[in-house]
Amino acid sequence: MTTDVHLASRMRDIKAFEVMKLLHRARDLEAIGRDIVHMEIGEPDFISPEPIIEAGQQALADGKTHYTPAVGLQSLREAISVHYARHYQASVPVERIIITPGASGALQLACTVLLNPGDKVLMADPGYPCNRTFVRMVEAQTIDVPVTAETGYQLDPHLLAKHWQAETVAAMLASPSNPTGTILSETMLAQLSDAAIKQGGRLLVDEIYHGLIYNATTTSMLTISDQHFVINSFSKYFGMTGWRVGWLVVPEEYIDAVDRLAQNIFLAASTPAQYAALAALDVKTETLLHERRDEFARRRDYLVPALRQLGFKIDVEPQGAFYIYADCSQFTNDSYQFAIDLLEKAGVAITPGNDFGQFRAATHVRFAYTTSIDRLKEGVTRIANYLQAT
Amino acid sequence: MTTDVHLASRMRDIKAFEVMKLLHRARDLEAIGRDIVHMEIGEPDFISPEPIIEAGQQALADGKTHYTPAVGLQSLREAISVHYARHYQASVPVERIIITPGASGALQLACTVLLNPGDKVLMADPGYPCNRTFVRMVEAQTIDVPVTAETGYQLDPHLLAKHWQAETVAAMLASPSNPTGTILSETMLAQLSDAAIKQGGRLLVDEIYHGLIYNATTTSMLTISDQHFVINSFSKYFGMTGWRVGWLVVPEEYIDAVDRLAQNIFLAASTPAQYAALAALDVKTETLLHERRDEFARRRDYLVPALRQLGFKIDVEPQGAFYIYADCSQFTNDSYQFAIDLLEKAGVAITPGNDFGQFRAATHVRFAYTTSIDRLKEGVTRIANYLQAT
Repeated sequence: MTTDVHLASRMRDIKAFEVMKLLHRARDLEAIGRDIVHMEIGEPDFISPEPIIEAGQQALADGKTHYTPAVGLQSLREAISVHYARHYQASVPVERIIITPGASGALQLACTVLLNPGDKVLMADPGYPCNRTFVRMVEAQTIDVPVTAETGYQLDPHLLAKHWQAETVAAMLASPSNPTGTILSETMLAQLSDAAIKQGGRLLVDEIYHGLIYNATTTSMLTISDQHFVINSFSKYFGMTGWRVGWLVVPEEYIDAVDRLAQNIFLAASTPAQYAALAALDVKTETLLHERRDEFARRRDYLVPALRQLGFKIDVEPQGAFYIYADCSQFTNDSYQFAIDLLEKAGVAITPGNDFGQFRAATHVRFAYTTSIDRLKEGVTRIANYLQAT
Repeated sequence: MTTDVHLASRMRDIKAFEVMKLLHRARDLEAIGRDIVHMEIGEPDFISPEPIIEAGQQALADGKTHYTPAVGLQSLREAISVHYARHYQASVPVERIIITPGASGALQLACTVLLNPGDKVLMADPGYPCNRTFVRMVEAQTIDVPVTAETGYQLDPHLLAKHWQAETVAAMLASPSNPTGTILSETMLAQLSDAAIKQGGRLLVDEIYHGLIYNATTTSMLTISDQHFVINSFSKYFGMTGWRVGWLVVPEEYIDAVDRLAQNIFLAASTPAQYAALAALDVKTETLLHERRDEFARRRDYLVPALRQLGFKIDVEPQGAFYIYADCSQFTNDSYQFAIDLLEKAGVAITPGNDFGQFRAATHVRFAYTTSIDRLKEGVTRIANYLQAT
């Protein structure tokens, strides 16, 4: 016996990442012996630093396999509070810090406690695609704000005021941004905070690429205001993608609601991962993390001019994360097909612009420098040969 | 500057677990030197079996710290498929098995792909409290169906048909049930499957306590029909609560939607946890798991008659999980206050009925036998003394 296929309407709006199709195709090509240069992958190529791995192993040896509190290990929350004091001169009470299953968990908690059906949230287009999903899941709506090089591919107070509607309750920011690698200055963060508060709204600030910032100073929204939600993670700078542990800093008035929600929908983040994350914040891990950051900086310093040399336009120098958002309009008006052709014909995998929104998506692609400089050079050579041949 | 406190309406309906308040109070009492017998905790007292811990450590030594696919490690999905063939004689294609961040992740995926705002879902009252939250999160509605000893505290085809409304799209079952420990027979599962399909709906079947079943045979819904969602986990029988890894088996038509949603909201379950879970399904771990199951059986066999002796009514012999749902109406009409009194005056922590619903909640409490028989005996003695003194 079979029954009706009843699929929630929201699933029409929740899309698979285009890059997943490319990644599957790349794996198929590799399975038949093709060599693929991966410049599409959104996670560091390094495995987690040794002190983090050892801390995870030790936690297991110590039998740390039971649930933690829903808000996370107290010691980890305290270490994050110290981290803000030490690196940002920001005073963040431990109670406001909630450990989550990755930044994904943090984004979900923030959107779910904040948004009623029909509420609206501003976000930059291009931006991290899943942000739209967390809003859509709870029947709220995204207002995509097209952003250009003019504002560093970020919202600014003018755009915020212009697009804010009666139903808008929040705006999302990301600094550094995925896919553009651009960052918001302290001045701009302060102006955006003022602009949102003036509207009676909140900011949801994605700081998950903090630490991976090159030739620029880093400011957290937490040094500026305690009225916003700040999302962070051990995935990127700390190299713990697969462990799934992040955190959310919430305004004081939301602590109770976020705790209740986390109890109900997650129970807690992974316990061994939380113990391992304690080692990520240890000063003895810092040297390793700095070495990795410096390696990313070298890759960026190689790849940005190399891509420009090929004819890609990079309007704003990316200052953080490990992404370059490049205008490919000299070569194509269909960045998705361009990405497929590069994969099939040149053996280079990149991410098409339509994974990040609609605005000018067909003339942009994202390069990730999550592979060695030697491989990046090989990728650039292959792209050069491909472009010359077409 | 401060801004408006905008809290989503759903947060009025998403409650903290009452037991968390009791647990916090118990920890406070312990901090000042009081000895507390814990009969409230919903996770095994054992740490994860040694082969699981070793597999987690080995995965870390091997550098398994990157993301897995959103649907999980292929090898783990295959091992689960083999598990169904071996233990249930059920043929479950690997493609239908999605690895999730605990059963919580599985419940969230199922509710989110299935339910539109205003859709309704039947569930037993008493039942696992978070089920209501996953439904509420996506603006759908729970229809609480009061269940009694007459149906073994479970839905049956009559109740399903009686409470099914035009907007109903699914019913949730749990076998074994939390809080009652009752199970559904193969016959009853088949009848419920037919009844739901007849309505054009689906069942969401929680099988997370499978393996912890005493003096009874275990049937999975997967041996009966491929039209329903089945939720399972490595937390309870396999003793991996803190790792956060479970799985969802979906009808074929939902594979694509669930994959897309998992990509967007989780990225993936914890990688070291998934590798560790492979060892949970290894035959060499089975002996250890059977020993633990037998220990839970001995505890149940001690505690059920001991509580009856004290005057608690246990209408249906619990056959699975590690819970006893007891009628305390001989002692109180306020089970929450009764639980507080037992904690404060007798040093025994239990869970009040209102964590599981509304129906007769004030005259029921849940005992968990997640502590040693010696401690259970101590708890029973303390309760006896307390009841005699009042």
